[in-house]
Amino acid sequence: MKNVAVLGAGCSGLAAIKCCLDEGLEVVCFEQEGYVGGLWNYNEEPRVGRGSVYETLCMNTSKEMISFSDFPPPEDFPAFMPHQYVVSYFKMYADKFNLLQHICFKTSVVKVDRATDYDKSGRWDVTVRCGLTDAIRTETFDGVMVCTGHHTYPSLPHFSGMDLFSGSIMHSHSYRRNKLFDGKRVVVVGIGNSAVDIAVDTSHVASQVFLSTRRGTWVVSRRGPWGLPADAVANSRFMFKLPLWFLQWSVETMSNFLFDHSAYGIKPLHGALESHPTISDELPTCILTGKVKVKPNIKQFEKDGITFEDETYEAIDIVVFATGYNYKIDFLDTSITGIEENQPNLYKYAFPPHLPHGTLSVIGLVQVVGALIPISEMQCRWFTMVLTGKIQLPTEKEMRADIQRKKQEMSVYYPSKRHTIEVPSIEFMDELASIIGVRPNLYRLFWQKPSLAFKCLFGPCVPAQYRLTGPGKWDGAERVIMNAMDNMIKPTRYRQFMKRNSKNGIKWFQWFVVFVCVTNAIFICLLFYDNYI
Amino acid sequence: MKNVAVLGAGCSGLAAIKCCLDEGLEVVCFEQEGYVGGLWNYNEEPRVGRGSVYETLCMNTSKEMISFSDFPPPEDFPAFMPHQYVVSYFKMYADKFNLLQHICFKTSVVKVDRATDYDKSGRWDVTVRCGLTDAIRTETFDGVMVCTGHHTYPSLPHFSGMDLFSGSIMHSHSYRRNKLFDGKRVVVVGIGNSAVDIAVDTSHVASQVFLSTRRGTWVVSRRGPWGLPADAVANSRFMFKLPLWFLQWSVETMSNFLFDHSAYGIKPLHGALESHPTISDELPTCILTGKVKVKPNIKQFEKDGITFEDETYEAIDIVVFATGYNYKIDFLDTSITGIEENQPNLYKYAFPPHLPHGTLSVIGLVQVVGALIPISEMQCRWFTMVLTGKIQLPTEKEMRADIQRKKQEMSVYYPSKRHTIEVPSIEFMDELASIIGVRPNLYRLFWQKPSLAFKCLFGPCVPAQYRLTGPGKWDGAERVIMNAMDNMIKPTRYRQFMKRNSKNGIKWFQWFVVFVCVTNAIFICLLFYDNYI
Repeated sequence: MKNVAVLGAGCSGLAAIKCCLDEGLEVVCFEQEGYVGGLWNYNEEPRVGRGSVYETLCMNTSKEMISFSDFPPPEDFPAFMPHQYVVSYFKMYADKFNLLQHICFKTSVVKVDRATDYDKSGRWDVTVRCGLTDAIRTETFDGVMVCTGHHTYPSLPHFSGMDLFSGSIMHSHSYRRNKLFDGKRVVVVGIGNSAVDIAVDTSHVASQVFLSTRRGTWVVSRRGPWGLPADAVANSRFMFKLPLWFLQWSVETMSNFLFDHSAYGIKPLHGALESHPTISDELPTCILTGKVKVKPNIKQFEKDGITFEDETYEAIDIVVFATGYNYKIDFLDTSITGIEENQPNLYKYAFPPHLPHGTLSVIGLVQVVGALIPISEMQCRWFTMVLTGKIQLPTEKEMRADIQRKKQEMSVYYPSKRHTIEVPSIEFMDELASIIGVRPNLYRLFWQKPSLAFKCLFGPCVPAQYRLTGPGKWDGAERVIMNAMDNMIKPTRYRQFMKRNSKNGIKWFQWFVVFVCVTNAIFICLLFYDNYI
Repeated sequence: MKNVAVLGAGCSGLAAIKCCLDEGLEVVCFEQEGYVGGLWNYNEEPRVGRGSVYETLCMNTSKEMISFSDFPPPEDFPAFMPHQYVVSYFKMYADKFNLLQHICFKTSVVKVDRATDYDKSGRWDVTVRCGLTDAIRTETFDGVMVCTGHHTYPSLPHFSGMDLFSGSIMHSHSYRRNKLFDGKRVVVVGIGNSAVDIAVDTSHVASQVFLSTRRGTWVVSRRGPWGLPADAVANSRFMFKLPLWFLQWSVETMSNFLFDHSAYGIKPLHGALESHPTISDELPTCILTGKVKVKPNIKQFEKDGITFEDETYEAIDIVVFATGYNYKIDFLDTSITGIEENQPNLYKYAFPPHLPHGTLSVIGLVQVVGALIPISEMQCRWFTMVLTGKIQLPTEKEMRADIQRKKQEMSVYYPSKRHTIEVPSIEFMDELASIIGVRPNLYRLFWQKPSLAFKCLFGPCVPAQYRLTGPGKWDGAERVIMNAMDNMIKPTRYRQFMKRNSKNGIKWFQWFVVFVCVTNAIFICLLFYDNYI
């Protein structure tokens, strides 16, 4: 029986333990904290070398989309889970599959290196430090799964005059609550999800918030039509079959309908699908009420304020850099991982191609237009099947060619450190699923269960779709797929409503008037739109 | 020269002073506080007998719509003004027209009664108390304008078990900031604008917020299409000419498109135009993230919690009643004002019909689907012209008939204490404007200045439309009307954007595909919609 070391008990680590157990492997997970869930656990105090969340953080992908493929979140959890719910969900997962007994808590990884017999066995020496006794020990494993995440090491840009600035400067990594910002004049630098969240959160108490962005961005809402989770509506197989230019046009049209990106001063040069999406329901209103003002990039810091590139000066008390993270795995030599300048040279973001054995893999080192957890889990399923010999890795040459292909595909995004590990969720999932043999065959499904095939094609592409067939098949998958959207909307319905009486209904002859008025209204709106903006 | 007492220096009071000066009247305004702007001034401590705002309060009607007719808000003020901006705007108005010199600050009104020669002269004795010396003095005035507002006396419902409840109970009148609610379990009772604002605000820090509502409501957003202020888009003369059932259908369809009111458990029995609108951009997301849960009415209080009418029990720390206000004018005998049980028996909500002289008027005792300030100002213009004899009031019988007619019109709303002073903004403005002679004649305007007529008909019905013609004509009105929408969007554009290069543009042949896809998408959405909800 082979043994595996799982490094980290965050969402990827938990999936890794579960997949090892599923494949009959012996598994030990090393976790530096005393709990599972990694960065999703809120801590009042920020700590160096740890991922972190802020108090008001709420998932921007919906619960059925981020779920583990064989364990959907409870029905009564909200569609977009605040971090407390996310942690509860992880704990439930760990309980359900008895994962906790395989975790060494309070144990941090010091070093991972090839074992002495590596060339022959492909084994790894894992050196860990016990947090309680500070004792260091080394164990040898047949396989290593690195599940340490990539939101740990803040990336801080430099601007001239920063040293002379008398206010405070912090990174979003240290941001916790808006208390500190009461009555302050704040600049948030960046336009990603953290930047926008922090700008909105601080705007509730700050005297003025500025959001400084070089490029601008396209903002989409969590809520789609009729208040359905937008990501669940958008992430369907059908949608992803549409031509890219059409999808891009649709997203931009809808984003602009939410609020005109030019008028609001946030419109970027790149297209909506050429960068990682920024999701916010509140930002447009914050701009419209003047609580958040959008500014161009910082030109330089002054003693008590900041000059922006449009030569405007603002007095500033606090600057928050929400400028992302650097990826590194400090217990592994870069000659092993091949991660350089945030460029992971890994086969499908998991396997270092130059290693002779497929016994070490990085899990979840991707940024997804969609949800991370299902991809981590799929990588885990893949790795464990490679380790047990059920699947063979391709040759080094083939792997390197695939890495190059991925880098070329990345060129649809504007060039930035932000887009080195960006993957399109359904496409990448299908790619891995094909290797494992769990990709659903919609053509066959259509003849067997047309309604299920319909949901698989047009409905939200939930991870349970990869439990319908092949190794790891799960009987509950069909139910999850059929009820996905229902389960997301159900928890909003705490209060029952009564049926309206008929006097409010519209008679059928009135529909014609409605049609004429609506088309005219659209026409007038378009007229006005050109007029005003 | 006749003299007028203006009671209160809030928005209505300021308009009153200005209108008196415009008509060449001598005017004294008594204001109990040391500043203008009334309840819009934020105070950390709530005070009995004063109107109040909470820290995060932001206007839910846009700045051009709420403006004084001859003094638009500054260009760089945000479209939806937080309370600080509102107060600044009032101060600017007072400065511009030199109103401050006519205000006796720190002077509260004790009593207003008929003067001894009232039957002959129509004069009033106004008794005031000086806040500094506590000295009481009485002065006699030819006219009295009561501008004391109607958000002063909280209306608190009673539920069984309230006395035994161990948590705190407060009214929205005392709500200031969410600090107190940190980590607490909160119930907000009501579904009006304050209720929803407070539920959203507390949800940022509370551990759980429940929104308890008997009836539910229709929620609309501040932001309309393309992020334009929704009220400015909706409040046009053209829109108000459309049939009511169509407007109602449109509002409900759009509200449901924002978020499905049945699915979110908030759908009421009444139609969208049958109650005062609830405006919130954030509530739907708060429900979707589970931070706010919608509950039915309270059944009874328990020691540590509340049982709702659906028999669910929740442990609760704080209850906020956002259940509105009672209207009363405590320095005037009800035999004069005729206000009974929140029913003001006033001719056009201003003149007590039974008084032989039109020398006393209540200003701004209306609740508007739109903005209050322009209506107050119009009432002031009317009153001052009545006082100077330029306009005659109709007979008591006619006035009483008009009051009855208004009460009948009110029956489109569901019966509630909330809807006793509800007026449709444009219709009521036009009604008063016709009396004064300042209602714009669109037919004539169309031949003189078609573009202006176009804006008056289809554009936001800004108050400056009532300065185009007749007494009080103002040359700046045309410019205000033409630029209204521009001025609202301009302050959002702090950052300039660059033009996209053409590679992202859509070629014309692609539009056909877009059309087909969009129509199909709508079809599929409708299919899904029936499926899911």
